[in-house]
Amino acid sequence: MEAKPRLIPFDAATARVEALVAPLAAELVRLAEASGRVLARNLRAAAAVPAANQALADGFAVRAEATLGAAAYNPLDLPLLAIATGDALPPGTDAVVALDAAEPSLPGHIAVVEAVAPGQNVMRRGATAAAGAVVAADGTRLAARHLGLLAAAGIAQVPVIRRPRVAILLVAIAAVDTPDANAPMLRAAVARDGGIAADAEVLPRDRPAIAAALAAVEADMALLAGGTGPGADDHAAAALAGVGELAFHGVALLPGESAGFGRTSGGMPVALLPGMPAACLCAYELLAGRAVRRLGGRDPALPYRVRRLRVARKLVSAIGVTEVCPIRLGPDDTVEPLPSLAEIGLAAAAAADGFVVVAAEREGYPPGAEIGAYLYEDA
Amino acid sequence: MEAKPRLIPFDAATARVEALVAPLAAELVRLAEASGRVLARNLRAAAAVPAANQALADGFAVRAEATLGAAAYNPLDLPLLAIATGDALPPGTDAVVALDAAEPSLPGHIAVVEAVAPGQNVMRRGATAAAGAVVAADGTRLAARHLGLLAAAGIAQVPVIRRPRVAILLVAIAAVDTPDANAPMLRAAVARDGGIAADAEVLPRDRPAIAAALAAVEADMALLAGGTGPGADDHAAAALAGVGELAFHGVALLPGESAGFGRTSGGMPVALLPGMPAACLCAYELLAGRAVRRLGGRDPALPYRVRRLRVARKLVSAIGVTEVCPIRLGPDDTVEPLPSLAEIGLAAAAAADGFVVVAAEREGYPPGAEIGAYLYEDA
Repeated sequence: MEAKPRLIPFDAATARVEALVAPLAAELVRLAEASGRVLARNLRAAAAVPAANQALADGFAVRAEATLGAAAYNPLDLPLLAIATGDALPPGTDAVVALDAAEPSLPGHIAVVEAVAPGQNVMRRGATAAAGAVVAADGTRLAARHLGLLAAAGIAQVPVIRRPRVAILLVAIAAVDTPDANAPMLRAAVARDGGIAADAEVLPRDRPAIAAALAAVEADMALLAGGTGPGADDHAAAALAGVGELAFHGVALLPGESAGFGRTSGGMPVALLPGMPAACLCAYELLAGRAVRRLGGRDPALPYRVRRLRVARKLVSAIGVTEVCPIRLGPDDTVEPLPSLAEIGLAAAAAADGFVVVAAEREGYPPGAEIGAYLYEDA
Repeated sequence: MEAKPRLIPFDAATARVEALVAPLAAELVRLAEASGRVLARNLRAAAAVPAANQALADGFAVRAEATLGAAAYNPLDLPLLAIATGDALPPGTDAVVALDAAEPSLPGHIAVVEAVAPGQNVMRRGATAAAGAVVAADGTRLAARHLGLLAAAGIAQVPVIRRPRVAILLVAIAAVDTPDANAPMLRAAVARDGGIAADAEVLPRDRPAIAAALAAVEADMALLAGGTGPGADDHAAAALAGVGELAFHGVALLPGESAGFGRTSGGMPVALLPGMPAACLCAYELLAGRAVRRLGGRDPALPYRVRRLRVARKLVSAIGVTEVCPIRLGPDDTVEPLPSLAEIGLAAAAAADGFVVVAAEREGYPPGAEIGAYLYEDA
């Protein structure tokens, strides 16, 4: 049996994870498949959008100057040039009189009863994008509105960062016949972070078997859950060291202190996650998830927004380790601490509205203290 | 040609949309497929989780009382009961001495050099969930942490609200040969809102053809984009009225005033969306999306968080209509107005960090005014 691994500070661990991982290469995908993907370079409009001055209302194309002085008591006779929303304006016209601002007149004519300004009810040629203008910037995570704009600019395929394929390896729990919680949890978290999780593979608590499985993985990253502790039966770190390099093993993070990170000799990043589900979740969220997000071109930071709130009751945390403390939102921008992840496991996370990451040098926060809470916002 | 449709207030329109739509029925899905889905009833643990008092550290199971007074200068001799994280505690023990708090001793014995308290390094039987306790509540949108907890509770299938299948019908743009922006945009928005969008179908600007297409749709909802204006060639509203009921057509919403809503005689909700892309996006986001989200059991409200911010420069909006004004985040919790959606189309949405929905009775906001801005947060 080995001694407890030396723990590196949490901030050092996140810095190592981010330094060991770089965004994947780009691939071309059809616009219809590009939602949520991260653009790999600036995209420019080949031609002006819209391609011509374009009607924004159903009505009649006019030269605005010719409507000067038009009013209900002074209808002005103009040629009838019917136009529908989206149509290009005919040559010599620069505005659209809406249907209800004109009345029928002689055949081929209208009586305009409201003056219009030049450009009224018109989107000018190139107003959405001049020819050659950037319509979506490198690094944009493509949402509905970007896809609409790219389609309008005639762009049918887009270069995006490849989605990371993530292998999930589970080292069998020692003795208790507990249903596995980690595989469905990690698969969902990987998908949320833009990755493609493979079906989980269960490994025996055996160093050569774990090493062989790591060496055989065909993916952009592997999550290896379980077998990370100091016990005689824990081989995850040694197996990774044997087939590559172990950047760290043991983090001053609670729960999650047996987490580690490294890569195989082939350069594939491998995150070591504790086997206990609450610690596994925590180590994924705070460490491994950063790598998945970064591989896929996303911001590696936690995918939750931070809100400044006040602690309603004393929030207690362990000194010397960065602790993840689940919280619930209370009235008037306050947070209530929940029982810890160590105490009640995943129930603490499932019941929480979010969590506070308490720095190692703190023992918690007194009532009334202002803290930055990460909020799940998936209710 | 008809007169401009009478516009109903935006709040009345959203109330009508929500009243016309109800969540779909539940279906059973495998836990592995349940990420992001909305739970259709409370789920309870069949048995206690964990099923036994469980070690939270690698070490030795002990009766805590027997370690009283243990110290480096006073090692206490105890029977060796090696235990790994996750193991059930043997009968008669109630705590775990970590590996580094004990030393080798006579065969079958350890010398404990640190006292432990009862329950130390142990998760108690049922601490995560008592037998029969609710582990996930009706209406929960299942995230990674919920899936982990459900798996730990031995739940392999979950009842979730069915994902709405959404048909997309596009009425051809009148004259300009513009690439369609609406189909890729709407498909991405529907997917974000939990729906399953079918491939778009393009229809001629012809009332019987639109009516026939609506009547033939096999889906939980249809989005009909284009043909919503007051022009002679606009048949969307009349076609819907012909095959069902039109709840409203014309909303005091800018852009998006030609939007409408109704349902077919078969009871399928149909949203009428303007054909111009910026107005189409806006009418989807503020009206139709509510129906998609509600069908799938989600909160119908806008899927963006609201942040209280200050207007850096005067924000101008049209009086008498609810206006969607794109904004960019500035320094020090301020927002900068961008050119309007009417002026530059989707480029305004694509460049924005979010938007402000300005009520009909306001002409905008003066510099320094506090507003609630919806933020995209997909950067």
